[in-house]
Amino acid sequence: MYGDIKLFAGSSTPELAQRVADYLGIPLERVDLIEFPNENLFVRLHRSVRGQDVYIIQTTSRPVHRNLMELLIMLQTVRLDSAARITAVVPYLCYARSDKKDQPRVPITARLVADMIQVAGADRYITFDLHAGQIQGFFSIPGDVLTAFHLLRDYVQGLIPQLHRPVVVSVDLGFAKKARNFAEALGLPIAFVEKRRLMDGSGTEVLSVVGDVAGRDVILVDDEVDTAGSVTNAYRAVKQHGARDVYLAFVHPVFSDPAIDRLSALDLKRIITTDTVPIPEAKRARLGDRLVVLTIAEMLGEVIRRAHEGRSVGALFNE
Amino acid sequence: MYGDIKLFAGSSTPELAQRVADYLGIPLERVDLIEFPNENLFVRLHRSVRGQDVYIIQTTSRPVHRNLMELLIMLQTVRLDSAARITAVVPYLCYARSDKKDQPRVPITARLVADMIQVAGADRYITFDLHAGQIQGFFSIPGDVLTAFHLLRDYVQGLIPQLHRPVVVSVDLGFAKKARNFAEALGLPIAFVEKRRLMDGSGTEVLSVVGDVAGRDVILVDDEVDTAGSVTNAYRAVKQHGARDVYLAFVHPVFSDPAIDRLSALDLKRIITTDTVPIPEAKRARLGDRLVVLTIAEMLGEVIRRAHEGRSVGALFNE
Amino acid sequence: MYGDIKLFAGSSTPELAQRVADYLGIPLERVDLIEFPNENLFVRLHRSVRGQDVYIIQTTSRPVHRNLMELLIMLQTVRLDSAARITAVVPYLCYARSDKKDQPRVPITARLVADMIQVAGADRYITFDLHAGQIQGFFSIPGDVLTAFHLLRDYVQGLIPQLHRPVVVSVDLGFAKKARNFAEALGLPIAFVEKRRLMDGSGTEVLSVVGDVAGRDVILVDDEVDTAGSVTNAYRAVKQHGARDVYLAFVHPVFSDPAIDRLSALDLKRIITTDTVPIPEAKRARLGDRLVVLTIAEMLGEVIRRAHEGRSVGALFNE
Amino acid sequence: MYGDIKLFAGSSTPELAQRVADYLGIPLERVDLIEFPNENLFVRLHRSVRGQDVYIIQTTSRPVHRNLMELLIMLQTVRLDSAARITAVVPYLCYARSDKKDQPRVPITARLVADMIQVAGADRYITFDLHAGQIQGFFSIPGDVLTAFHLLRDYVQGLIPQLHRPVVVSVDLGFAKKARNFAEALGLPIAFVEKRRLMDGSGTEVLSVVGDVAGRDVILVDDEVDTAGSVTNAYRAVKQHGARDVYLAFVHPVFSDPAIDRLSALDLKRIITTDTVPIPEAKRARLGDRLVVLTIAEMLGEVIRRAHEGRSVGALFNE
Amino acid sequence: MYGDIKLFAGSSTPELAQRVADYLGIPLERVDLIEFPNENLFVRLHRSVRGQDVYIIQTTSRPVHRNLMELLIMLQTVRLDSAARITAVVPYLCYARSDKKDQPRVPITARLVADMIQVAGADRYITFDLHAGQIQGFFSIPGDVLTAFHLLRDYVQGLIPQLHRPVVVSVDLGFAKKARNFAEALGLPIAFVEKRRLMDGSGTEVLSVVGDVAGRDVILVDDEVDTAGSVTNAYRAVKQHGARDVYLAFVHPVFSDPAIDRLSALDLKRIITTDTVPIPEAKRARLGDRLVVLTIAEMLGEVIRRAHEGRSVGALFNE
Amino acid sequence: MYGDIKLFAGSSTPELAQRVADYLGIPLERVDLIEFPNENLFVRLHRSVRGQDVYIIQTTSRPVHRNLMELLIMLQTVRLDSAARITAVVPYLCYARSDKKDQPRVPITARLVADMIQVAGADRYITFDLHAGQIQGFFSIPGDVLTAFHLLRDYVQGLIPQLHRPVVVSVDLGFAKKARNFAEALGLPIAFVEKRRLMDGSGTEVLSVVGDVAGRDVILVDDEVDTAGSVTNAYRAVKQHGARDVYLAFVHPVFSDPAIDRLSALDLKRIITTDTVPIPEAKRARLGDRLVVLTIAEMLGEVIRRAHEGRSVGALFNE
Repeated sequence: MYGDIKLFAGSSTPELAQRVADYLGIPLERVDLIEFPNENLFVRLHRSVRGQDVYIIQTTSRPVHRNLMELLIMLQTVRLDSAARITAVVPYLCYARSDKKDQPRVPITARLVADMIQVAGADRYITFDLHAGQIQGFFSIPGDVLTAFHLLRDYVQGLIPQLHRPVVVSVDLGFAKKARNFAEALGLPIAFVEKRRLMDGSGTEVLSVVGDVAGRDVILVDDEVDTAGSVTNAYRAVKQHGARDVYLAFVHPVFSDPAIDRLSALDLKRIITTDTVPIPEAKRARLGDRLVVLTIAEMLGEVIRRAHEGRSVGALFNE
Repeated sequence: MYGDIKLFAGSSTPELAQRVADYLGIPLERVDLIEFPNENLFVRLHRSVRGQDVYIIQTTSRPVHRNLMELLIMLQTVRLDSAARITAVVPYLCYARSDKKDQPRVPITARLVADMIQVAGADRYITFDLHAGQIQGFFSIPGDVLTAFHLLRDYVQGLIPQLHRPVVVSVDLGFAKKARNFAEALGLPIAFVEKRRLMDGSGTEVLSVVGDVAGRDVILVDDEVDTAGSVTNAYRAVKQHGARDVYLAFVHPVFSDPAIDRLSALDLKRIITTDTVPIPEAKRARLGDRLVVLTIAEMLGEVIRRAHEGRSVGALFNE
Repeated sequence: MYGDIKLFAGSSTPELAQRVADYLGIPLERVDLIEFPNENLFVRLHRSVRGQDVYIIQTTSRPVHRNLMELLIMLQTVRLDSAARITAVVPYLCYARSDKKDQPRVPITARLVADMIQVAGADRYITFDLHAGQIQGFFSIPGDVLTAFHLLRDYVQGLIPQLHRPVVVSVDLGFAKKARNFAEALGLPIAFVEKRRLMDGSGTEVLSVVGDVAGRDVILVDDEVDTAGSVTNAYRAVKQHGARDVYLAFVHPVFSDPAIDRLSALDLKRIITTDTVPIPEAKRARLGDRLVVLTIAEMLGEVIRRAHEGRSVGALFNE
Repeated sequence: MYGDIKLFAGSSTPELAQRVADYLGIPLERVDLIEFPNENLFVRLHRSVRGQDVYIIQTTSRPVHRNLMELLIMLQTVRLDSAARITAVVPYLCYARSDKKDQPRVPITARLVADMIQVAGADRYITFDLHAGQIQGFFSIPGDVLTAFHLLRDYVQGLIPQLHRPVVVSVDLGFAKKARNFAEALGLPIAFVEKRRLMDGSGTEVLSVVGDVAGRDVILVDDEVDTAGSVTNAYRAVKQHGARDVYLAFVHPVFSDPAIDRLSALDLKRIITTDTVPIPEAKRARLGDRLVVLTIAEMLGEVIRRAHEGRSVGALFNE
Repeated sequence: MYGDIKLFAGSSTPELAQRVADYLGIPLERVDLIEFPNENLFVRLHRSVRGQDVYIIQTTSRPVHRNLMELLIMLQTVRLDSAARITAVVPYLCYARSDKKDQPRVPITARLVADMIQVAGADRYITFDLHAGQIQGFFSIPGDVLTAFHLLRDYVQGLIPQLHRPVVVSVDLGFAKKARNFAEALGLPIAFVEKRRLMDGSGTEVLSVVGDVAGRDVILVDDEVDTAGSVTNAYRAVKQHGARDVYLAFVHPVFSDPAIDRLSALDLKRIITTDTVPIPEAKRARLGDRLVVLTIAEMLGEVIRRAHEGRSVGALFNE
Repeated sequence: MYGDIKLFAGSSTPELAQRVADYLGIPLERVDLIEFPNENLFVRLHRSVRGQDVYIIQTTSRPVHRNLMELLIMLQTVRLDSAARITAVVPYLCYARSDKKDQPRVPITARLVADMIQVAGADRYITFDLHAGQIQGFFSIPGDVLTAFHLLRDYVQGLIPQLHRPVVVSVDLGFAKKARNFAEALGLPIAFVEKRRLMDGSGTEVLSVVGDVAGRDVILVDDEVDTAGSVTNAYRAVKQHGARDVYLAFVHPVFSDPAIDRLSALDLKRIITTDTVPIPEAKRARLGDRLVVLTIAEMLGEVIRRAHEGRSVGALFNE
């Protein structure tokens, strides 16, 4: 209907892109991605994509702005080359936490990013586990917002027999509802870590745990781990409230400094995540065997195939 | 800078609009709002608004679609009459709960409503306590998303001396973070009502309370009360967990059937809300003295004045 | 070229939609159309429409705003589900009489409706007998504006042998040119009913008939009958000028109150119309055998088929 | 509010523009309007219009496309020079008769012209007596669609004492409603000229007069006179039906060939029109004293002044 | 993918269009192109283009504005008839020299033209040798900007064996880089004609030649020849500097007056150009055998075929 | 007209911004510019800009993408805070050399950047010496494209008395026309450096000088110096052709590696540039006294003042 699938990879996540290509049984399209000495990027397709159904895989983790700009330039390039349909495939969407004005005179950068992706030429987008589902409404174009919590859930399900009275704990109250869904799917109880400032003017922050964790194994959940500050707090809070072993599950391993230092310092039994963001080898090494990286490649490949063939994507997940 | 303030009221909430006009010390502009026998609406301004700074106050509670269409027609009318700047003032924005695709093949109607308000001609918007703050990002135009929780907080603050070990309880997990902010501002602890389906295939829903409510007076909080189903559940759950007196605070009194029946059946000590949605006299009567309606009129009037004069609105709330 | 035809029906006119589906030999797509207690509507498609050629049949008669909003939400839903092409099929388009500013400070609501249909996601539209053909120019998207006067003409043609010196009479001067075309196609003469206010300051309205109706059977024609006020006036005017039997032909049976009372009170030999607007059974019963409802279903089905196949629609009517 | 009025004249109608400038007591802005040997036009403003309220007067009569392009280039030039507000003042809007698809596979060129005026940079427009009022809805921007029928009416009012049983006759059925309004305002009866093809396959066109003209003085009315074909037909038809003296009143003297030949050949007592389109001296000479050209300059000047000052334009006409 | 190729020709260049059709082995679509007495143009397609892949060939040489408007109307007509994809094929794009503001308060008319082509409905465009390649960036839609310098180069290549120490000379410094590319491809040296005003206040223009032309045969190159003023200057300058025979090569034969007079007066050995602009027979006759017109028809036909089939166009030229 | 001037500085060029503020006699607005550990940027205005006339000064030199994104976020922030008018002041616009498709399947990134600046919220822009003037046409919004060649010219003018038979030499043929203008303004002759590949298949590049430089002092000119590769080539070419002393003048000191190494290695008498791009102290030190940096601050300040007051900017330069 829209020609053939043409799969491109930006420079952010070549391994994931290759896995998707392997799943689909097609090659990655060849493209020159050049950075000039003045930092300006340049793109040149080796073959024309006229009338084709183009998918550009580029995650927008660090270097964030370079990766974002590379994505935008690739989108424009295939648009100007008269592609029939263009899908931006962005496993991790940057700036998703800047999604509302919760104080005056600040930006909503996630909306700006959505606008940029559209003005560059995307007809559709595919992404994973947006910080807030409402970000879908920032786009005028259709998109598939997929979830990798299926993968995390299945993995944790396999751990449960070894766990002692396990409880799911939401690292952040903004994640409460999704944490509950995760717990519900596993048939586990839920608790919450709450952080607040004392109103005595001292600015002191106090952590408390709402719900029951004493004597239980805890599965901390969140959507992403950035500097691991919240995770560290949550770890300490549940330990103070008598938790036994602690596990950590989340989708996006952003791992900004000092995340690895912090995570290394905690006695986490497992750090379960996905490859929406590539984890450099050095960081992997420091986390060792505790780190479990589940791949989204098959899911992504299948969604691209179905999107191309005009079949239901929702059906894929039995939703 | 944009001419004079011209304040219009749609037919949804004449009392609130008059109060805002009184606060500003200006009259409401005269306008014919006509419904023809075929239900088509018609608008005719009595005076020109060329080059003026127009504010149209219209809440989009029931009759929802008629009120929304009336707002849109008014917006277009003042636009075609060459107003300099047009602000849609919508204390309660309809369809705000349809703000994301949480299942496949459903709409994001809040985005559609935002698009309609813009295409009709609004240059700016003002609203209160959106179900999700991210809805701001659905608009391309600037807006002021105000909160009436200040009003609720001040009222509850006055009650605290009479309460026994009070605790704030979030009716819904999606409201957890805002409930925490509310509790934090009052210096009170927080608990959550959690609802989940049993995974045994029976579809049974089970309510539990996460956190401590036993022997405490409870302040249930939420952003709106629609049919009062969640409130009823939360009331029962906290009572089962040993709560003493129960109070209810929320911004938008949507009060769809059977909300009044349900609320009347509960032993709520106070039902504290605002006038973002008008409450018909019959409904007020049934709730009696327990109902406390705080007015947003002064806040709204002051925001309009500052927006007109190009002064900070954030400063108003000392944010 | 755009996948398969997927035919949806809004809740306004299920019978017509079913007839179109029958004509095309395909089923209506299954969709949940839900109204929540707060009047907010919700749509959920049972199957994906990715890459398909979608037609949504929804007339915008009463409840006007609910039907319009339902149409818009359906349009957005299929757009967000990545339909390849979306056609809004609106047999009767609301607000078509608000098509120009004939006085200052009023809206052009038909343009607003066109904008809304586009912003919701329609790529094309199909409608019947717009009040003014110029409304086509309110849309940026292509559309097929069909006419059901063919059906009325054929029916009246069959009556002519029984009529005595028949004359076509235009109920309204704004309809003069189309009435002339109708008369020309039938080979009949034409006359006009003219209404004007006396310039003596009394505001009295005077009806006159321009053209010859004395001793003739009269076929009153108009595009729609709303409250039947104009029809009643025209009926009386032609009777006063000596008309014999009177027939009435028009496309859109809007039938707002008190249309049925008024039509029942007139000695009309036939009331010939179509099913662009559904007529409730109670209203049908009161008009009895005089009411003749011609169906547009085959025409609509054929136009959809041809639009889907990329064949000429104009050719269908030998225009 | 938008700086000072800056009035520009395109090359189409310098006399009218000068009169408007005189009325407003301001000079026409100086601008170079150059045509290169390759027909490309070039515009250069002598002074900056940054932050000013610009009005560009350009009628789009012949040379139609050159005049239209000159208008568009002027609009873009003042836009790129950062004018605060730009109004296209187009006394006669070309292509207004191409306002709907009354057959398949034809354009709606009036919409295209509206789009072009907007894309070039107009924020508002002012025009006179559009062929169909609905063309206002082709624009997204606000506009003032003025009528010069006030001028024609006042002039004809002055003639009435000398006329014998005068009757207004609409030259075209599409003009029937406006002709009725004109007659109503004068307190005169109305009749219509009807043209139709015989259905015998011969293609013969037959003219008839609906209404009473015998022994009466006739005032033919229309919105514009192009080749004067319809006027000639109408003249003959009313004469055949026994009319006495015939007068002609219309707003836009388009006067394409062979209009002057045709009008010269008819015994019209007066040819009453306006200066929305300039009439070359040679044509004026051939029509002689019978030609009465009423000027729209004062009306246009007053509307510009009021638009600039943010006062009501509707009020001007006591509508 | 987009239906069948449907090829239309505007009235500007019927011969070229026919050659393209012949190359493609398809007929030109039949269309009525009518000019009414009031100069308004009208278009009527004989057959529907629903769902087809439409190409409209129209060059925008003189009559420039009429040709441009005809193109725009044709674009809108096929858009409103629901074509699947529409490509404006404009061998010579008017106003391309008005491509920047090189002084204050002037237009960028080429951008305006690009906007007009898009707003009328083009999805893509094809053109030849834009005055500045940057004009591609004025369009939001994709396009193929082809070059006919391949044709000129091949022809000149054939001449070289007969030439004496040939040198390429750029007529204009703005063309310097392209002239160098042309020279490079031919393996010839390059020189430039430079024109400047004396700074002594006299306004005198002085021509000089930068580079070596003495005793050499000169090939003057430029992108277009309009009035031939620059060519005449360049001819004289190189002759004054001792050039032997002079040849002239350029893509667009605009030939505005007095181009033919001027060219006839020069002793040019060959005038080598293409058919992007049709040359009237009278003009051809005056230039006689020296005029060599190379046709772009095959290249254009092949590009259309490849664009239709979704194959690379760049590959065609081995770029 | 648009409130007061509010001047903001991004983090790219604080010194220039402060100088502009000093010239205008106003403070720079205070704003938090934060980079989070995940590289995401955040902006928070200290004071509201509602209804004000905002200018954001941010050059887009390295770090290019971070600077660009910071500019975009600042634009969105002031837009969402309801600024009346927003001007992006970008002394050096990144990606300006990616301004056309000079080969197939490449981007036009400068257009993308223009689109991004507009979608973020700029109403106007101000920049200096675009690589191609046509880039102005990439913007839909108005802008002031200023030139700093006035500054360079005045400086070189002062040098001329000490120079021996000076000649201006264009470093690049694409700069030929502007170099000529520069030479003309100084009353100096012109020459060009030409680079071409040998057509013998060896890929060898050969430099030649077109025009006369032997025994002359040479002023090399270009718009920017990036890696100084072209400058080095040009220097060598003119030296080989017998040039005496060599000076270098250009607007934008981009100075990507190894520019400083290269420039240091050449015997350039002066390196004359501006502060559109900040030059780090370390780089300045290596170039020593030969480096002359002229400031654009006064010019920029004056243009901002005039833009704010609605006065002519062109008049400033006596153009």
